[in-house]
Amino acid sequence: MRAGEPHAEVYALREAGEQARAATAYVTLEPCAHHGRTPPCADALIAAGIGRVVIAAEDPFPQVAGQGIAKLRAAGIAVESGLMREAARELNLGFFSRIERHRPWVRVKLAMSLDGRTALANGESKWITGEAARADVQRWRARSSAILTGMGTVLADNPQLTVRLPVGESSRGSFLPTRVILDRHLRTPAGSHVLDGQTPTLVLHAASAEATDERFAKVERIAMPELGDALDLEAILSLLAERHCSELHVEAGPTLCGALFAAGLADELLLYIAPIMLGDRARPLMHLPPLAEMASRWKLRVVDQRQIGNDWRLQLRLA
Amino acid sequence: MRAGEPHAEVYALREAGEQARAATAYVTLEPCAHHGRTPPCADALIAAGIGRVVIAAEDPFPQVAGQGIAKLRAAGIAVESGLMREAARELNLGFFSRIERHRPWVRVKLAMSLDGRTALANGESKWITGEAARADVQRWRARSSAILTGMGTVLADNPQLTVRLPVGESSRGSFLPTRVILDRHLRTPAGSHVLDGQTPTLVLHAASAEATDERFAKVERIAMPELGDALDLEAILSLLAERHCSELHVEAGPTLCGALFAAGLADELLLYIAPIMLGDRARPLMHLPPLAEMASRWKLRVVDQRQIGNDWRLQLRLA
Repeated sequence: MRAGEPHAEVYALREAGEQARAATAYVTLEPCAHHGRTPPCADALIAAGIGRVVIAAEDPFPQVAGQGIAKLRAAGIAVESGLMREAARELNLGFFSRIERHRPWVRVKLAMSLDGRTALANGESKWITGEAARADVQRWRARSSAILTGMGTVLADNPQLTVRLPVGESSRGSFLPTRVILDRHLRTPAGSHVLDGQTPTLVLHAASAEATDERFAKVERIAMPELGDALDLEAILSLLAERHCSELHVEAGPTLCGALFAAGLADELLLYIAPIMLGDRARPLMHLPPLAEMASRWKLRVVDQRQIGNDWRLQLRLA
Repeated sequence: MRAGEPHAEVYALREAGEQARAATAYVTLEPCAHHGRTPPCADALIAAGIGRVVIAAEDPFPQVAGQGIAKLRAAGIAVESGLMREAARELNLGFFSRIERHRPWVRVKLAMSLDGRTALANGESKWITGEAARADVQRWRARSSAILTGMGTVLADNPQLTVRLPVGESSRGSFLPTRVILDRHLRTPAGSHVLDGQTPTLVLHAASAEATDERFAKVERIAMPELGDALDLEAILSLLAERHCSELHVEAGPTLCGALFAAGLADELLLYIAPIMLGDRARPLMHLPPLAEMASRWKLRVVDQRQIGNDWRLQLRLA
């Protein structure tokens, strides 16, 4: 669903036509009750003569939050709610995160060797994983609202951070994830791919940073508050949520990834493991504060694992 | 099979009795043709009147090596050889390694966090993985001929390196893997578990090292050649092969594990991955020489992967 487009109910009712009368509608999310960019779905279900509505998850959006259900019941429609609630929330985890926590669902993607290294000591990282894994990453980029990176990655790799899906696979319509670049001191070099204007791009910087040249002509710049010696990550996530970013895909280096984890702001780790060893002089997965005791370790749980080409992909969430 | 016990053919023929006459015998390994600690199996098969023998893998042992097959054929028995050869070799990989390469199959067991760390900076490593994974390790110890460790592990963890199988599981008869301790300077402290004589133990040290006290009274000591600033690992593997060690299970720290890998002497990596993060100040998986380019990375291939409790086990071999 794109913002501003009709909701799924409208498409389903169109297709059902007269068969909708007295029928049961199954929906993952409570039908909306308010006039947003589109008219209320609850009204459309009532007008179509639906007899019963089965809802998986209540809509946490303040302007809906039970009012969709109330409206349907007031119109004499039988409503059951809560069936497969967790699965429905999973389908829309970015949406629920944005509405309930006022920040996007943050998914940190990393590719590492068996010994937990993401690049050689000299910075070389092309390539840790194989082609199949790299194509898979494009699919995760494509489903995200935005792609976040930091200055270290821009300087080292000059990434495009665009979606390049394998031939034959299509993205979600015309939607392009916004590139979000944390560039505290506005140091992104002229000619960097992320400044090329090919994709909507947001450069976040400190209020004190200045750039009078034309480097940033094709992107949007926003000054953000600082916290310690970095931009305030919570403020950034809050800004992105306000801009309707539901799923944030992070492709960054050990500093930014570690800062997100250490602050408890990373919800998910998408970890590609290549069957290679790079040695202990190679670069670590994340910079994290040292632990004094094992009890303080960061605990995660595996929600999915699979082989992709010769590599392994683990999807983990904070436990 | 224990050395000195009758081979499987003898047991099978005893059980078959008269039914063996003109029957087909399927064996994974070429029947022996020589008088070792037991009489030749080829003779037993001929005496029982077997009509046909299907052999998966030829015996590489110099005193057999085709002579078992020759003997059977000379007695008029139809012999077919090579069916599922690779699978049969896999069943006996330690034996083939010992006979063909004059060294044991070396399996390095390591337990690490998602970010490739085996202990905190302060050395604390209890526990990275859960109970199920630790019980699984006992099974791998049990199937090995010997368990190898180094002085760093003895000093840090004072391990027992005995087989403690889960209740209800039995080991391979009365067989106990020999503990092999690399103690170049004979520094193992008095009272260390590995010196308690509970299990056959071999302490390998430099020729220059001396110990006049009673610490080593219950173990065997052997002086080994040195190579650079460590004991000569190839010489050690050769010694263990001479002593009929077929599978060597390594539970050691980053120095010894890294030295085995860097020297190309580690055949297999048994890697337990816990869904935790320990941070980049924690201890690395292995000390390996730094790489100048990605093309030099150590490549492995996954031969097995599975979830064990909340942990993951990858079994990898050098590619």
